[in-house]
Amino acid sequence: MTGVTLADVEKARDRMTNEDVVRRTPIEPSRSLSNVCGGDVTLKMEHLQRTGSFKTRGAYNKLSQLAERGDVERVVAASAGNHAQGVALAATTFDIPSTIVMPTTAPQTKVDATRDYGATVELVGSNFAEAMDHAQSLAGDPGVAFVHAYDDPDIVAGQGTLGLEIAEQVPDVDTVVVPIGGGGLISGVATALKGRLDDVRVVGVQAEEAATVPESLDKGIPVDHPDPNTIADGIATGGISELTLDIIAEHVDEVVTVSDDEIARATLAMLERAKQVVEGAGAASVAGLLTDDLDVEGERVVPILCGGNIDMSALQEVITHALEDRSQLLTLRVRIEDRPGRLAEISDIIAEHGGNVRSVRHDRAVEDLSIGEAYLVFEVVASGREHTEDVVRSIEEAGYEVERLTKPV
Amino acid sequence: MTGVTLADVEKARDRMTNEDVVRRTPIEPSRSLSNVCGGDVTLKMEHLQRTGSFKTRGAYNKLSQLAERGDVERVVAASAGNHAQGVALAATTFDIPSTIVMPTTAPQTKVDATRDYGATVELVGSNFAEAMDHAQSLAGDPGVAFVHAYDDPDIVAGQGTLGLEIAEQVPDVDTVVVPIGGGGLISGVATALKGRLDDVRVVGVQAEEAATVPESLDKGIPVDHPDPNTIADGIATGGISELTLDIIAEHVDEVVTVSDDEIARATLAMLERAKQVVEGAGAASVAGLLTDDLDVEGERVVPILCGGNIDMSALQEVITHALEDRSQLLTLRVRIEDRPGRLAEISDIIAEHGGNVRSVRHDRAVEDLSIGEAYLVFEVVASGREHTEDVVRSIEEAGYEVERLTKPV
Repeated sequence: MTGVTLADVEKARDRMTNEDVVRRTPIEPSRSLSNVCGGDVTLKMEHLQRTGSFKTRGAYNKLSQLAERGDVERVVAASAGNHAQGVALAATTFDIPSTIVMPTTAPQTKVDATRDYGATVELVGSNFAEAMDHAQSLAGDPGVAFVHAYDDPDIVAGQGTLGLEIAEQVPDVDTVVVPIGGGGLISGVATALKGRLDDVRVVGVQAEEAATVPESLDKGIPVDHPDPNTIADGIATGGISELTLDIIAEHVDEVVTVSDDEIARATLAMLERAKQVVEGAGAASVAGLLTDDLDVEGERVVPILCGGNIDMSALQEVITHALEDRSQLLTLRVRIEDRPGRLAEISDIIAEHGGNVRSVRHDRAVEDLSIGEAYLVFEVVASGREHTEDVVRSIEEAGYEVERLTKPV
Repeated sequence: MTGVTLADVEKARDRMTNEDVVRRTPIEPSRSLSNVCGGDVTLKMEHLQRTGSFKTRGAYNKLSQLAERGDVERVVAASAGNHAQGVALAATTFDIPSTIVMPTTAPQTKVDATRDYGATVELVGSNFAEAMDHAQSLAGDPGVAFVHAYDDPDIVAGQGTLGLEIAEQVPDVDTVVVPIGGGGLISGVATALKGRLDDVRVVGVQAEEAATVPESLDKGIPVDHPDPNTIADGIATGGISELTLDIIAEHVDEVVTVSDDEIARATLAMLERAKQVVEGAGAASVAGLLTDDLDVEGERVVPILCGGNIDMSALQEVITHALEDRSQLLTLRVRIEDRPGRLAEISDIIAEHGGNVRSVRHDRAVEDLSIGEAYLVFEVVASGREHTEDVVRSIEEAGYEVERLTKPV
């Protein structure tokens, strides 16, 4: 018997009477993912939740109970991201003032959004741990309640309402794939699904560079990751809690890990095929679905797109990374004699072979060049690996030395 | 009495029995757009249609009838984009071979997608007009049917099924906002809506640099735009047809135009707030909603997101453009003496003021520099106009000459 039951999740849902704050998010079939993984894939579109992530569910469940108690004058939380917005909105909904401590490195858009939901934001510390220390010190005052992002049964029960929706929207689901950061989401969802459905498999996904669950399960205690480092910043928590470890041990069937490359590719697949903007943590479930470690052949599968709060500049980087990875964006450095006509000649060759030059620059100040030589550096949009090789070969056949750089400049 | 009636649209829908080809697309509330425009906004998510646009509807209606006739051995169409995919899929559905002529400039992803749907693709001509000429020459053969993208009552009636869905999904709608390229979509949608609902307003949106409808309505004949040039390539048709002009004149209440800047901002708003990937033509309806020319205060409004087929490299450009426009991405050129330590000093200043340096390069080969001078060119991510000014001022206060370049390098 773990710390959260199906009844707790159902009570959490009964409290969620305000569709303007927590909504039942839609589901969408995904033909392209189904084709790739061999299952019948339905996306749970939780990135369309208010505040852009599932965090609002747990925060709402927590704050509604603090509001009932009546003796809470202020809530405090620490977060660099989605938990901040969830707590801010839920607190404002129940007329409780909130202070959210965010590290000074938090993206401006998330700071602004948290303020817009009505919180007082304090920017303290250069990382999450320092922000957390400050938040906990504030919570020492009487009348102030600290709201943890996942080490709290009320938060877990709130996140579980997402599992109830899946059980109702896709009652014949075989496998649900859930990203794991601190474990709050998967704990709630697994509790709900295992309570409601007979034969459902719950699979957790962690980012390789922030994975702590396999070792924590082995050792039976939560293991910290000293330096979690992944593009899926929403699940880079550095560890789970005893509460969530116990629930994961009881209800979660498998945990797989995915690399940042896989997460970037999954994010791109969501953009290009599903036309959905998801953050790295949100795409992690899709990345898990696409790994060889997970077999969903012939199954009804639901990956949870748990959040959509990705900075536009981060989104640009993901797209760039993925386009390079697929040889659709390449940087070519061509050594030339520094004389008129070379740029035109090489540009012509690229165009003739269907490449689209996005930018070009001259580079003369490089040490390995002889006098009278220069580099032309082209950023070229191409259609893929074969096309790229064709473009490179055609320039080489015209007598030039071509080097393919791995990063655009 | 125009060339297409509500009954035609209803018959088109009766033919659409295969949900795997044409689906009823979902609707989604948009809180952020509602806040901005003062109406109650519900997005019609037609970019989630199979093939990524509404074009499948018209093509399905057309092809189902050609298939019934039984004497059509092949269909031919010309398109650089969504019509190509719609016709290819519909033809394959009815086991009719298809040849799609695309200009050689068509994006590789769209060529690939059209082939994947089963069409034979011929790349002919350097622009749409030349591709069209070739396609029409192919259609001269007996047994070959040409499928026009909008100058065809069956195509218009097929697109109209989208209007029926809106009438059923949002029966209390006051205003529906529809992008106009060749006029096929708005003609069908307006016919359906005006036939089904009593008090509905239908507003068309054109891209400024491709707008022909206002003048066509004035003159009573379709006016061509010799050189339509907009990032919303899906609606850069160069003109409407007599068929669609007549229907627009009868059923459409207003037509507004939007600039490419407005379309880029609307595309970004869909990404950031609605978490949806739409192409320029798809965002045009949202851009129209946000112009001062259209007042929807207090109304139930449905903009149609008509397509989501945007190249990832084009999406990157839209994001870059919009971030620059909002002063969240800036390029600073700082004149320095070319000595050690300058890069570190200026980087420190930018970091202290919360700017995030994305790239930096030295530039010594610029004519207006004295000997011993150089430029440092920084690409900086900031939070907006005020922040940007703060960063620039702080570098200037350290004694440097700073120039803000409008484009990243």
